[in-house]
Amino acid sequence: MIVAMKAGATEEQINHISDRIRGFGYTPHVIRGTERTVIAAVGPGDKKEHIEQLKSADGVENAFPILQPFKLVSTEVKKQRTIIRVGDVTIGDGGFVVMAGPCSVEGREQLMTTAEAVVKSGASILRGGAYKPRTSPYDFQGMAEEGLKLLAEAREKTGLRVITEVLDTEDVEVVAEYADILQVGARNMQNFALLKKLGEVRKPIMLKRGLAATIKEFLLSAEYIVTHGNPDVMLCERGIRTFETATRNTLDLASVPLLNELTHLPVIVDPSHGTGKRSLVRPLAKATVAIGADGLMTEVHPRPEEAWSDGPQSLLPEEFDKMMREIEPYIALRQSETN
Amino acid sequence: MIVAMKAGATEEQINHISDRIRGFGYTPHVIRGTERTVIAAVGPGDKKEHIEQLKSADGVENAFPILQPFKLVSTEVKKQRTIIRVGDVTIGDGGFVVMAGPCSVEGREQLMTTAEAVVKSGASILRGGAYKPRTSPYDFQGMAEEGLKLLAEAREKTGLRVITEVLDTEDVEVVAEYADILQVGARNMQNFALLKKLGEVRKPIMLKRGLAATIKEFLLSAEYIVTHGNPDVMLCERGIRTFETATRNTLDLASVPLLNELTHLPVIVDPSHGTGKRSLVRPLAKATVAIGADGLMTEVHPRPEEAWSDGPQSLLPEEFDKMMREIEPYIALRQSETN
Amino acid sequence: MIVAMKAGATEEQINHISDRIRGFGYTPHVIRGTERTVIAAVGPGDKKEHIEQLKSADGVENAFPILQPFKLVSTEVKKQRTIIRVGDVTIGDGGFVVMAGPCSVEGREQLMTTAEAVVKSGASILRGGAYKPRTSPYDFQGMAEEGLKLLAEAREKTGLRVITEVLDTEDVEVVAEYADILQVGARNMQNFALLKKLGEVRKPIMLKRGLAATIKEFLLSAEYIVTHGNPDVMLCERGIRTFETATRNTLDLASVPLLNELTHLPVIVDPSHGTGKRSLVRPLAKATVAIGADGLMTEVHPRPEEAWSDGPQSLLPEEFDKMMREIEPYIALRQSETN
Amino acid sequence: MIVAMKAGATEEQINHISDRIRGFGYTPHVIRGTERTVIAAVGPGDKKEHIEQLKSADGVENAFPILQPFKLVSTEVKKQRTIIRVGDVTIGDGGFVVMAGPCSVEGREQLMTTAEAVVKSGASILRGGAYKPRTSPYDFQGMAEEGLKLLAEAREKTGLRVITEVLDTEDVEVVAEYADILQVGARNMQNFALLKKLGEVRKPIMLKRGLAATIKEFLLSAEYIVTHGNPDVMLCERGIRTFETATRNTLDLASVPLLNELTHLPVIVDPSHGTGKRSLVRPLAKATVAIGADGLMTEVHPRPEEAWSDGPQSLLPEEFDKMMREIEPYIALRQSETN
Repeated sequence: MIVAMKAGATEEQINHISDRIRGFGYTPHVIRGTERTVIAAVGPGDKKEHIEQLKSADGVENAFPILQPFKLVSTEVKKQRTIIRVGDVTIGDGGFVVMAGPCSVEGREQLMTTAEAVVKSGASILRGGAYKPRTSPYDFQGMAEEGLKLLAEAREKTGLRVITEVLDTEDVEVVAEYADILQVGARNMQNFALLKKLGEVRKPIMLKRGLAATIKEFLLSAEYIVTHGNPDVMLCERGIRTFETATRNTLDLASVPLLNELTHLPVIVDPSHGTGKRSLVRPLAKATVAIGADGLMTEVHPRPEEAWSDGPQSLLPEEFDKMMREIEPYIALRQSETN
Repeated sequence: MIVAMKAGATEEQINHISDRIRGFGYTPHVIRGTERTVIAAVGPGDKKEHIEQLKSADGVENAFPILQPFKLVSTEVKKQRTIIRVGDVTIGDGGFVVMAGPCSVEGREQLMTTAEAVVKSGASILRGGAYKPRTSPYDFQGMAEEGLKLLAEAREKTGLRVITEVLDTEDVEVVAEYADILQVGARNMQNFALLKKLGEVRKPIMLKRGLAATIKEFLLSAEYIVTHGNPDVMLCERGIRTFETATRNTLDLASVPLLNELTHLPVIVDPSHGTGKRSLVRPLAKATVAIGADGLMTEVHPRPEEAWSDGPQSLLPEEFDKMMREIEPYIALRQSETN
Repeated sequence: MIVAMKAGATEEQINHISDRIRGFGYTPHVIRGTERTVIAAVGPGDKKEHIEQLKSADGVENAFPILQPFKLVSTEVKKQRTIIRVGDVTIGDGGFVVMAGPCSVEGREQLMTTAEAVVKSGASILRGGAYKPRTSPYDFQGMAEEGLKLLAEAREKTGLRVITEVLDTEDVEVVAEYADILQVGARNMQNFALLKKLGEVRKPIMLKRGLAATIKEFLLSAEYIVTHGNPDVMLCERGIRTFETATRNTLDLASVPLLNELTHLPVIVDPSHGTGKRSLVRPLAKATVAIGADGLMTEVHPRPEEAWSDGPQSLLPEEFDKMMREIEPYIALRQSETN
Repeated sequence: MIVAMKAGATEEQINHISDRIRGFGYTPHVIRGTERTVIAAVGPGDKKEHIEQLKSADGVENAFPILQPFKLVSTEVKKQRTIIRVGDVTIGDGGFVVMAGPCSVEGREQLMTTAEAVVKSGASILRGGAYKPRTSPYDFQGMAEEGLKLLAEAREKTGLRVITEVLDTEDVEVVAEYADILQVGARNMQNFALLKKLGEVRKPIMLKRGLAATIKEFLLSAEYIVTHGNPDVMLCERGIRTFETATRNTLDLASVPLLNELTHLPVIVDPSHGTGKRSLVRPLAKATVAIGADGLMTEVHPRPEEAWSDGPQSLLPEEFDKMMREIEPYIALRQSETN
């Protein structure tokens, strides 16, 4: 780590910091500039705790790390890309996987109709929320276990694998019983108790990026799951919150190649939540393929104008089918590139 | 609610929307402009579900509510301000309450030293984290129940009331056993499972504003707790995340008078997290009094450069004492205004 | 426009607002709800001035427009897409145009080497700044007219058309003399004096989106140029400022299909400024084609590590060539879609 | 500056960077860590140009400055606070100055009424826009020179000093002829041509913070004016753009004590633009005094509901008077603190 001393820092202060650095197990290198003294500390880890303590000391202007704070999820630590297998579906091997389904599970007919439509169009994973995180307590909160059972039934019927959100540590067990992939929603990306518990689950996790989460924080949340025992984590870019109100969120597509540099975990894109507008989903789906994501997740509803949540961003089954036809040649083109 | 039709919407579409609106139990009023038709729907509630469904229909450009989505926390529903009593401390009655203490409980000596210092300077509530939400899994995660016991011990010794954070539904019971006020951290502001559970607790809750939470979402999270049975909620402005990196967060002080218009709940300000810089805490404390908040929460540590977390924003006991002396005449001035 | 009255608004206030609305030339429709009265005003324009005045009146909670504030640039007013011709280059006709070159013109050798490289790889427009907007007064401010002359010389030699930035009303004339397209930088997107003057220029304008500009403001700035007489405006998405620091800006690729819905003006994407990282430019270039933009602008420098500005985001000529080879099949695929 | 090499950087790359650093006139210090090599460069300036060039080189992961990029405006370079004199008004000497008036000059009666009201209530500077930066070309653009003349007339009548905005280099001369202080609006904070020209003016400048400007950029824009010859610059915090829509902007009050640490220039706060809501102005005015600003600017209009711009945030003369009465004891309290 690097410690920048204030302009007028005294020798005593510089020595004190050097001593603290040694105390933490690093080797200090004092570099005296014309205006300022800088101390470089070489050692095992750039621990945030040490950095904060040094920052708090007299005479210090700033202290910052050189090393990245995430380890196990980093390409520096593990070069080999993580490939996640869910039944016969493979995520992260260079192919492109499509997850589709309604925002919320609302009933048997709605779910089965949607599941049958999306499997026919080529999706391999069915999404559908049984536990819903809703901004208002007056909004529909999900069908809970009944919804999970319907998802399992749809899996039976269609062969689709199932992804669904888990909201709370207390629900992890029951969700893990029914789902093939457990999803952590954006609002829970830093629910650390939940992340720790998911580290103990033997099913893959899809972690959605928080509304105000930096890439670094996103990776540290994945690190929580991996350090607690579960290496099968995929990341989902779903838009961040900015000043722009013309779209529901600002989809940060550049995060895909950036994450591909920083981590070996697969990256999925969710253009439905990323924009909140049905008409933008299809163009973004093409861009998602072109930019190198491992898959996409999109909301589909047989009657968006009767959906209990997220209707405005849900595709009709026929629009979803059109999207699948449109991205096909892009997937083929991408495959040809890597060969 | 208001439904704006697209420029070229057909009569059929307009009639269809009017029918849907009637179906939801509202009365539609069709207003035909030169360029666009607008339908105003009058009825019981402006439910988000209805708005989303209408938005999803053909021919609709946009649909938006007129009514505020929060009810029980709103000054429209309850004019009388909520006054929260914690032992002999009263919050929300026009007085000014100070909560102070270390970011994390690190051990007996650290906590007792701090508690004795802050009570002597005039604080009435002791803060200290026993369960710590940390961005990295490699950072100190808190002393858990052992930390809670130390807080209870400090209460015994000093007479201070105790506020501490609860991270997860599974910890609610144990935290409620020891704490006088349960705190929901910024990262959990939309942990709805936790909010629901806190609705069943018989102790006051302090809800911190999320890093990317709008005022409306903040109030809806409070509404969750109140609708689930607990009316004793206070709000805490602790800064939001913006593009500015010179401070840790951007403290939105204007939210204080705005919340005072919208809600009857007390509002506390946390200038420590709001800025992340020790030197800014004292001037912000004065502004917090002047702007009309019900109290402030600030971090104090006997040796910030040895703190396991948040050292750079923690005041030394003597700085805290100075702050208390400085805000005293502002509190007195404010009192004289209301008389 | 819609005027929402406060919960307790009096009859007198409602009548007063209705009178004001009539005074502005609109027809008021008073709709009485159970909790609130809403007044819909139908008439010519939803002028911001009227909305603000109504908002300022007693008893009014909020007032907001239904109509979009931009007219001439809107697809509602002009369905036909704007096609811009610059010599033999056509922008906005469904093809894909590439603008490339150094951030700053630094000298003859640098510019000619770059120009020859990019034309060989297939670019059709040369970029290069002669007047540089720099955050610090101590940074290189550009070669001014000397730089313009070098750009003209490069055009002579290579046949490339030339785009360059104009910073100030006083420079419009000289820049228009040399350049084929005049660029308005992000920091000047709301320099209205400049926009007005560019309305009088007989050359196409490329308007870059401001760092904190909404799509609506972006289109209103284009509207300034068009209302002042120049219809040949293209828009450039170059990233917005958010809390994320891992990239220089957050490239809002969803703005491309959104703008394609709202306006008939061509849309260009700048992944160099959009990310600030060389390694992200190539994947984003593919996504830019896939999502339906009319072109892209990218920085190229023969020796980025000697560039006087923006080296970290500049491609080497060989990387640029690789990018051009990579996007070719995506362009071909896109063409085949529209046929 | 500090250069962090990539994990696998070669000896050759490290040597190359050391040579480049020497070439720029700095002395390199190579520090070899267990995972990474860092090179500290000591020398005259941490020039952005050098940092960007090093960042662009092979084997480099990142390069960043230690020194602040602003000089003349910095408290490190000039300890003594800048005191600005405008007639008999002094800004920056520890007192508190109030600037008030309408958003736009709309006519003689409107301006004179307002001027007479605000001088009576204790304002010392009259604000009023004659050249208006408006988001839409269809909004009122200001009375131009006619408006300036009315401002001068109001100065004659009331003894108030006059501040007004200048939008463009071409208007600097005429505005400087009439105004006592020239204001640079938020949208022009990085209009560098304008800043340079204002460096040549012999009148004080008030520079408003840009909507997306960091504190560092804000100070660098002030540095432009000062390096070009005009030391009389005051800064104005007027809110930044964030995701929050309940207020027009997010007023960053913490910037006041932060700027007081970093620069010797006076700091003014504008709660009218900072919030966009009349009802929030008075509480924020008190906070502005308490936090240590040198003054505040607020919009006042005799009939906000007839104002051509910014009515919703304008105070009525009687509200302004009330505000002045309310802040008086806070100003007195602050004075007593420094004695």
